[in-house]
Amino acid sequence: MSIIAMKFGGTSVGSPERIINAASKAVREAERGHQVVVTVSAMSGETDRLLKLADAIDPAGSPRERDMLAVAGEQASIALMAMACEKLGRPAVSYNAAQINMRTDAAFTKAKILSIDDTKIRKAFDEGRIVVIAGFQGVTGEGEITTLGRGGSDTTAVALAAALKADRCDIYTDVDGVYAADPRIVPNAKKIPALSYEEMLEMASSGAKVLHTRSVQFAAKYNVPLQVLSSFEDKPGTMITEEVQAMEDVVVSAITHNTKEAKVTLIGTSDVPGTAAKLFSYLAEKNINVDMIVQNVGENGLADISFTVEKTDLPYIQKNEQALMSSINAKRVVYGTKIAKISAVGVGMKAHSGVASRMFNALAAKGVNILMISTSEIKISCVIHEDYTELAVRALCDEFGLASE
Amino acid sequence: MSIIAMKFGGTSVGSPERIINAASKAVREAERGHQVVVTVSAMSGETDRLLKLADAIDPAGSPRERDMLAVAGEQASIALMAMACEKLGRPAVSYNAAQINMRTDAAFTKAKILSIDDTKIRKAFDEGRIVVIAGFQGVTGEGEITTLGRGGSDTTAVALAAALKADRCDIYTDVDGVYAADPRIVPNAKKIPALSYEEMLEMASSGAKVLHTRSVQFAAKYNVPLQVLSSFEDKPGTMITEEVQAMEDVVVSAITHNTKEAKVTLIGTSDVPGTAAKLFSYLAEKNINVDMIVQNVGENGLADISFTVEKTDLPYIQKNEQALMSSINAKRVVYGTKIAKISAVGVGMKAHSGVASRMFNALAAKGVNILMISTSEIKISCVIHEDYTELAVRALCDEFGLASE
Repeated sequence: MSIIAMKFGGTSVGSPERIINAASKAVREAERGHQVVVTVSAMSGETDRLLKLADAIDPAGSPRERDMLAVAGEQASIALMAMACEKLGRPAVSYNAAQINMRTDAAFTKAKILSIDDTKIRKAFDEGRIVVIAGFQGVTGEGEITTLGRGGSDTTAVALAAALKADRCDIYTDVDGVYAADPRIVPNAKKIPALSYEEMLEMASSGAKVLHTRSVQFAAKYNVPLQVLSSFEDKPGTMITEEVQAMEDVVVSAITHNTKEAKVTLIGTSDVPGTAAKLFSYLAEKNINVDMIVQNVGENGLADISFTVEKTDLPYIQKNEQALMSSINAKRVVYGTKIAKISAVGVGMKAHSGVASRMFNALAAKGVNILMISTSEIKISCVIHEDYTELAVRALCDEFGLASE
Repeated sequence: MSIIAMKFGGTSVGSPERIINAASKAVREAERGHQVVVTVSAMSGETDRLLKLADAIDPAGSPRERDMLAVAGEQASIALMAMACEKLGRPAVSYNAAQINMRTDAAFTKAKILSIDDTKIRKAFDEGRIVVIAGFQGVTGEGEITTLGRGGSDTTAVALAAALKADRCDIYTDVDGVYAADPRIVPNAKKIPALSYEEMLEMASSGAKVLHTRSVQFAAKYNVPLQVLSSFEDKPGTMITEEVQAMEDVVVSAITHNTKEAKVTLIGTSDVPGTAAKLFSYLAEKNINVDMIVQNVGENGLADISFTVEKTDLPYIQKNEQALMSSINAKRVVYGTKIAKISAVGVGMKAHSGVASRMFNALAAKGVNILMISTSEIKISCVIHEDYTELAVRALCDEFGLASE
């Protein structure tokens, strides 16, 4: 018998009516003869409400107790979802993470899943039940309660799908699929019917917010077909699977943008081996994630190094700029905070040449100046001035045919 | 090292400020050198909020899922309480029922505690931690989550105190102790400094609402000294212990009243052996709890039987009155819904005679007619017309010196 994993996010279970609506989708799959496991997030706003109570007591409360607190949201929503399934006529049962031994490491607030005991789930399947599982939460070998961090419920759903060898993992959300560009910028952006894991990963890490990177990595690792679809509209969403030939026929699948980064340029560093290593070791030690890195050497034999970091990390860097400069003998440091990273993503790039020059030309035609460039096998990213974000995204959607007429 | 068990009800943890206030009491006991285990209820209103969500989906949802839902309230409050203790400078750790294997039977929504594994609690004590435990909840041998029903958090606290052989179990609440009469009726009713388990049980079962019968039975069984005291004022409460000599010096400890019962009188039943047995077996089968029972035989050899039941059970009895009458050949049935049961409770009755006549005289002096009488070793209950409730309670407080001047 085939197994379908489903996941409903906070807005999809944000009220009793919405829970019943979500349950009706689970019941429909069960009535089609599938065994159904449903992962549920906390009702929208609930986790924030709980953490606000914690902040009122101690914003620096221990991560262990914050996790004990945060799981209360899913503890409630799974029970409500199971009740709704039963109300709609299908037997159901809810389990929290401890009950199915959703084993994680002990990294409170950002734990990683290690294993799942599927005994109770299989038994419930045998009894004809829809199984409802609390997303976001885990339990350590010592019985300590953990949470998986942001986007954790997606990861729970995918991990369950992998452990149960599900045919598909459907991620129900408040959008009806993955779009070729942010619809707030390109209202007629096309919905993408199919994507590879690799593309989805590049998109997630370059600004698309539909799925969290970790859940996509998990799906790719265990080859779980993912579908992103709407809780509120009844139509097919976006399928995310291994790369298939058809995907390569599309040169560029999506244009993403990210305005949350800032640019740091260290000018006049000595161009000797080990300079970059020193710099980025220094930043890694401070837990600062660097995204793009560009280095070029001037005529005087001195190198300029530019990199981008999250804007939230910039104050720390500015405060320690002397240490940063002296670590690599830089002469000056320049910051750029009003920047945007625009990326074109597509497995089709592997097979089609000339994508980069089409991208640069399209931007140049609109008078958009490119500040940094970085490329991977299936992605080209350009840093531009923030003011040109919308213009650039629209120009690239036109260039690669990603908006409908 | 001495162990103190504490319990804070919903109003005592109803806001972050109140949680910090409650935590300060736990921290104070820890600073006195005690090992402290704190049982916490859900924040006031939270359990009702959750069950209202359930009702919006299915008021007849399965008890198992209602329990899964209801425990979310304590899951949150224990974490907040542990954070508050740590914020105040004492290490703390919270555990839900599953984590300490608070084993119950599988009677969802009204489970009974079977055993507790104190390993984690002892270990945390050894680490100098205040241990915070979720009240109201339990777990079965199969890992199913249960709740203990109304008043369940008191029972959790007493069970922990018994399992850990605590020196005392302090029940913090929104009143500062047990009063000799309801202060809404007798504003100057005296606070009772000490009570026996037996008295507290009689009081609880005859209308006093401070403690739930089950928790007092548990305390009596394991001889756990209980103290009822205020979360909001810093003064001694009421100690509830085994009977001691001093208690007997007080003839009557408290006057309670209960207006939630109704009276049923079956007239002209045949006075043959087995009549009462038939009647009350019939009611027991229907899960109707009978409180007082009075039978007397008239001159004609026919008996009248009166009994009281919860008013909420009366509609069922009225609907089935024909079956009820014919079960014991009664001629008529008469109902009394506007009644009040007034009880005088005190272990002193064992040593002092004449309490009953003092009670009847005091009521007669105020023109209060007595409809039914029932007595136990330490309690005398009279059923009167409801309109005389306040008058009777005040008259008896005067008679037995239970109100201050």
